[in-house]
Amino acid sequence: MAERSLIFPAAEYRDRVARLQDQMGEQGLDALFLTAAADVFYVTGFLTRFWESPARPWFVIVPAAGDPVAVIPTIGVELMGRTWIADIRTWDAPDPADDGVSLLIDTICGLVPDTAQIGVPMGLETHLRMPLADYDRVSAGIAPRRFVDGTNAVQRTREIKSTAEITAIRTACDIAGRAFARVPEFAGVGRPLDQVFRDFQAALLHEGADWVSYVAGASGQGGYGDVISPASADPLQSGDVLMLDTGAVRGGYFCDFDRNYAVGEVSDAVRRTHAALWEATEDALSALRPGMLACDVHRMLCEGLTRRGATPGGGRLGHGLGVTLTEWPSFTPRDTTPLRAGMVLTLEPGAMVGDGRMIVHEENIVLRAEGAELLSPRAPYDMVELR
Amino acid sequence: MAERSLIFPAAEYRDRVARLQDQMGEQGLDALFLTAAADVFYVTGFLTRFWESPARPWFVIVPAAGDPVAVIPTIGVELMGRTWIADIRTWDAPDPADDGVSLLIDTICGLVPDTAQIGVPMGLETHLRMPLADYDRVSAGIAPRRFVDGTNAVQRTREIKSTAEITAIRTACDIAGRAFARVPEFAGVGRPLDQVFRDFQAALLHEGADWVSYVAGASGQGGYGDVISPASADPLQSGDVLMLDTGAVRGGYFCDFDRNYAVGEVSDAVRRTHAALWEATEDALSALRPGMLACDVHRMLCEGLTRRGATPGGGRLGHGLGVTLTEWPSFTPRDTTPLRAGMVLTLEPGAMVGDGRMIVHEENIVLRAEGAELLSPRAPYDMVELR
Repeated sequence: MAERSLIFPAAEYRDRVARLQDQMGEQGLDALFLTAAADVFYVTGFLTRFWESPARPWFVIVPAAGDPVAVIPTIGVELMGRTWIADIRTWDAPDPADDGVSLLIDTICGLVPDTAQIGVPMGLETHLRMPLADYDRVSAGIAPRRFVDGTNAVQRTREIKSTAEITAIRTACDIAGRAFARVPEFAGVGRPLDQVFRDFQAALLHEGADWVSYVAGASGQGGYGDVISPASADPLQSGDVLMLDTGAVRGGYFCDFDRNYAVGEVSDAVRRTHAALWEATEDALSALRPGMLACDVHRMLCEGLTRRGATPGGGRLGHGLGVTLTEWPSFTPRDTTPLRAGMVLTLEPGAMVGDGRMIVHEENIVLRAEGAELLSPRAPYDMVELR
Repeated sequence: MAERSLIFPAAEYRDRVARLQDQMGEQGLDALFLTAAADVFYVTGFLTRFWESPARPWFVIVPAAGDPVAVIPTIGVELMGRTWIADIRTWDAPDPADDGVSLLIDTICGLVPDTAQIGVPMGLETHLRMPLADYDRVSAGIAPRRFVDGTNAVQRTREIKSTAEITAIRTACDIAGRAFARVPEFAGVGRPLDQVFRDFQAALLHEGADWVSYVAGASGQGGYGDVISPASADPLQSGDVLMLDTGAVRGGYFCDFDRNYAVGEVSDAVRRTHAALWEATEDALSALRPGMLACDVHRMLCEGLTRRGATPGGGRLGHGLGVTLTEWPSFTPRDTTPLRAGMVLTLEPGAMVGDGRMIVHEENIVLRAEGAELLSPRAPYDMVELR
């Protein structure tokens, strides 16, 4: 068990904490206070699906120097004890009278001085995974120490993936690639979409996913209307484009890419649009370099589509990826995050095919000094046909 | 698609909102401000796995009178448009400059008077699913209107399940029951635990789960050390107790129960402990009545175990269930929530088998005026043997 629950050797986590502490130093933070599953996993290696239960909060404090401290419910002690974290403090949660609040206050006050500024991720794409009323109690209890915005320290660290992380994401991508290759075995004319979703999830598990945190998709004549719906029981029909999109998880790391399939005979408009998406992606794969901004990628993908006569659709045309299905930055016109070597990203251009119908294409890459390196097996230029 | 995305007829949601509004009236709330997936789904029927992406917040406001208003990212408009919600306001998320904040302030100020108190779930077992810094901005922007604790209004409403909800949870339980019955097909001596987890998830999908949000379990000689770990690659050995626990989802509703299996020959201590767990559960099934408190169930299960010579283990011995894997109340010594007819609950006694090893048993029930009615197919008295 030890190996699987630690996920990576302790040196990997020590390096992450050192990088977090560098960021904290730059930003004048005396500690980070982490509550979200992804941040806790990132620092400790504590991997469990138990986050699905909203009953209990979990806390990790990363001081400006020294090792992190975990303040967690008793039910997690054995699993946290198998990670590299040595200082684990616990209480019997859920406790309506004091759900870790006083233990947390004691721990924080013992770790950082009165003057401390403690970073909490509170910016874009974050949330606080604990009851708000308890956060206010902790905030009052640690005064004059103060909670301040620590988003930047966490995001600038986590967005640069280590070699081990890139390997993990590539493994998840390979698993999904093999599952996508098996779609013709279970999808075709007359097959209900919800059954296709189930079979696709089973294929992902069979190919090695530990679990399947995300499957979405759609099927419609000449394209689809949205990309986040659960599946209907409607049967696939000739002329449909079937899209499947997955965030399958292996060792706590996600892939996030989709594939489009032609159900029977699809229209020329569909074929042309898919080709434009593929080619615009190819352009971006060639052109991407560290130093560009997130908004540059959005523009590049839009221009690539427009140049080929396609109409860009969808809001964000890609994003970060790793410990969660999606991470910052976002390829939108307004995101000016600089791209850096070591970022793992999705390229996700969408294009309209007539009124309210679209096709969305997606690949996963790691950005190197010299440019993009694919992590997902490249989609075929022509959509695979399903009969 | 319409049928699946609405999940239930609009009357179901209107009734929920009416009950929420009764609670709001009792507690002097002018509106509820909801951000969590479960609360949004409960009020609107908006069901998507897209919550897995932390990029975008989603908001629903329930005024003290009248229909709810959804303030959501553009990407969700089509799906929300297929629910019963008519007033849907949108922005292009994620927007680093203003991620729905000004739209939200305008919406709230247009819905409730200056003097309004707006309930936000901020108590035990809740969290705010939006960036904390944006919550503070909204809080300042709606002044003199004030956010106050709305936990009670939401929890007293959601904890009473409708007939449609009970049917949905029973369906999820039936699916898991069929998958548990198939475990002997793929689990036995020499089979790696992580493969068993994968096969079990595939079996749940095959039996009708839309997706599998939670599988945990463990295997160990004469019991196991914890119940929230991911699976190791260790092969099952004769003498192991294998436990599998699942929160499989159908139509947005969860089951949550486990089963224990004897791998080859298990010890007499294991058999005795399993029998004590089964019998203590049977006692509770007979004795449970509305009007008892959550802590009474904890005491009843502990006494049932002790009376049979078993040592109670684990912290909480059961909890609510429905739109999330676990809901309040918690069967702990400190939870004094009154049990009411219509609650769906798990009975989850755990008992120690020697040093640091335990066995956990779990069933799902709905509490009726006359007592407990099983939703999960009752576990066999003797553990099923795997060869």
